[in-house]
Amino acid sequence: MAIEGSNRLHHLRQSLALNQGQGFLVTHLPDIRWVSGFTGSNACLMVSPDRALLITDGRYTEQARLECGDLPVHIVSASLTDGIVQIATEWGLEQMCLQGQHVSWAEVSGLQTKLKRVVVEDGPDPLAHLRSVKDESELSAIKKALAMTEEVFEEILDVFEEGLTELDIAAEIDYRHRQKGASGAAFDTIVAFSENAALPHARPGSRSLRRGDIILMDFGGVVDGYHSDMTRTVVFGRSDKDFLEAYEAVRSALLKATERAAAGMTGEQLDGVARQVLTEHGYGSAFSHSLGHGVGLEIHESPSVSRRNVLPLPEGCIITIEPGVYLPGHFGVRIENMVQLQSGGCSTLNRLGTDLVRL
Amino acid sequence: MAIEGSNRLHHLRQSLALNQGQGFLVTHLPDIRWVSGFTGSNACLMVSPDRALLITDGRYTEQARLECGDLPVHIVSASLTDGIVQIATEWGLEQMCLQGQHVSWAEVSGLQTKLKRVVVEDGPDPLAHLRSVKDESELSAIKKALAMTEEVFEEILDVFEEGLTELDIAAEIDYRHRQKGASGAAFDTIVAFSENAALPHARPGSRSLRRGDIILMDFGGVVDGYHSDMTRTVVFGRSDKDFLEAYEAVRSALLKATERAAAGMTGEQLDGVARQVLTEHGYGSAFSHSLGHGVGLEIHESPSVSRRNVLPLPEGCIITIEPGVYLPGHFGVRIENMVQLQSGGCSTLNRLGTDLVRL
Repeated sequence: MAIEGSNRLHHLRQSLALNQGQGFLVTHLPDIRWVSGFTGSNACLMVSPDRALLITDGRYTEQARLECGDLPVHIVSASLTDGIVQIATEWGLEQMCLQGQHVSWAEVSGLQTKLKRVVVEDGPDPLAHLRSVKDESELSAIKKALAMTEEVFEEILDVFEEGLTELDIAAEIDYRHRQKGASGAAFDTIVAFSENAALPHARPGSRSLRRGDIILMDFGGVVDGYHSDMTRTVVFGRSDKDFLEAYEAVRSALLKATERAAAGMTGEQLDGVARQVLTEHGYGSAFSHSLGHGVGLEIHESPSVSRRNVLPLPEGCIITIEPGVYLPGHFGVRIENMVQLQSGGCSTLNRLGTDLVRL
Repeated sequence: MAIEGSNRLHHLRQSLALNQGQGFLVTHLPDIRWVSGFTGSNACLMVSPDRALLITDGRYTEQARLECGDLPVHIVSASLTDGIVQIATEWGLEQMCLQGQHVSWAEVSGLQTKLKRVVVEDGPDPLAHLRSVKDESELSAIKKALAMTEEVFEEILDVFEEGLTELDIAAEIDYRHRQKGASGAAFDTIVAFSENAALPHARPGSRSLRRGDIILMDFGGVVDGYHSDMTRTVVFGRSDKDFLEAYEAVRSALLKATERAAAGMTGEQLDGVARQVLTEHGYGSAFSHSLGHGVGLEIHESPSVSRRNVLPLPEGCIITIEPGVYLPGHFGVRIENMVQLQSGGCSTLNRLGTDLVRL
């Protein structure tokens, strides 16, 4: 099932099933990294039935040599487009498929103008699906990132005191990830107190912590390019009945979805398991986002665990399960774990439990 | 010259010179923010000769109301594309211009399929040029961000000790920006010791600091969405003659370019001033990138201060001046200030000088 690093190009070719004269152009940087190992910020990857080549610029000559093994590298002095045109001509391509979602209209127009005799087409693009299935090295990097995130969470609980702002806590979380060796935060860290936690995409601000506040934290780190993603909601002092009820409903939804999660279910079905629990607790309309998403070289990637995904979740994918309840003006609760799906079940990657933490 | 916040939509309309039946679709988020104030992560802005409207999703209903003043807001329940099609139909558009560099091919194809009777065209897009001229509030935010960055630089000089890694220093720089109130780092902070500093786009790693090392730091913070960008190269202990010569050449190039910089010069001309100084010192081929770039809501924006920009630099633009010398295997030197161009000269936004700092 999982595709080991050295075989990725082979699997991409198999999925593409290109004919002679056909090429595929990879322009999405996380896809390029997944196939080739290249981590620079300006590149594309051309694949034909019997050739493959990385195109990048002179800043990355040495780096491409180190990262890409025996994949040939073509260095351009001007734009990547010029390199693509040159290689497409050398290879005698008649048709080139692009990643329509990951190439700008202007880039396509530029290519079409210069590649007069080559038909340029959108997709089909198998990479999102290929990448959703994680191999051992990917699982290991994500576990390492998540272990750091959980250590940061445990440490940060000792930091809270009245008067600290959401921004203070967010800075502390990011700093501690870096101290532990993460290359950075997995996304803009969310720290939201009470009424701010009612916004699912809150940004930390200058709101100060007061006794009785709810604290929602959604955060992660990056290790070897792979992301962790975790949310916990804790209370600072005493909490009222409304909050405790909502917390238990969200926790039940997480536990039930984890119990039922397995490869082969659709995203819609798994989302529905959690949504059903929250609806039974009276919070159906307060769960305003989807249940989860794939995580890997990107913080949000395939598969989506949402009502709009009617495709089966593949064996070996790593996803978040993150039910939430948002009560505008009052508070929000979200609890998020990461799991890897297998046939017939899933493994939770988190070490920490979800019992309510009171500070 | 500078365009105050409330007049930005008016100036955009003037630049677009749309006729009845024509619309312009802004899809680049920093452009949307500049015109409307909206800071969310999913939106587009439609403009016609007599109407304007922000399209976003339900997560941002409240935020859009708070940020966008009296600009009407349309909330979509599905994709932005559906909202665009609905509004284009309501407005009776016959032609819609897009930002070709900031819209994916797949998005354009989706629009073309659904907007059968509307001609969809690429540009012209005046926003990069409009945004390059900074008003008082933008200058103020950038100055505030740069003042933080300079404070961080002064503090960090006391932190250096043998054995610290590049990653340690980078984490410390980012943390201190956040402590001072920056919403984050302006870009991935560069900290590079000696031989690593010879790579213009070095990423911090686990290399430990040793006596005699060169330390190159390129870093900045974000305040109210606006970025600072500063580079200093310092020495840890004694430095050899080769380094001192290179440092003085880079410093001379910076000072000469600052002395000569003025609105109305082309990017090519200003780049040439610094390049000439470095060439005279024997480092012409060791200066492997362009002299600078515009900075604002994006860390790299218009205008480019490079050999490829033959357009005049506009009055009121804020740019970096960052000559560098890179000697592979040995070391690199870069010094970077920010300036605002006026007619006949420029103002340096940095408070700190560029004398060599020895630790």
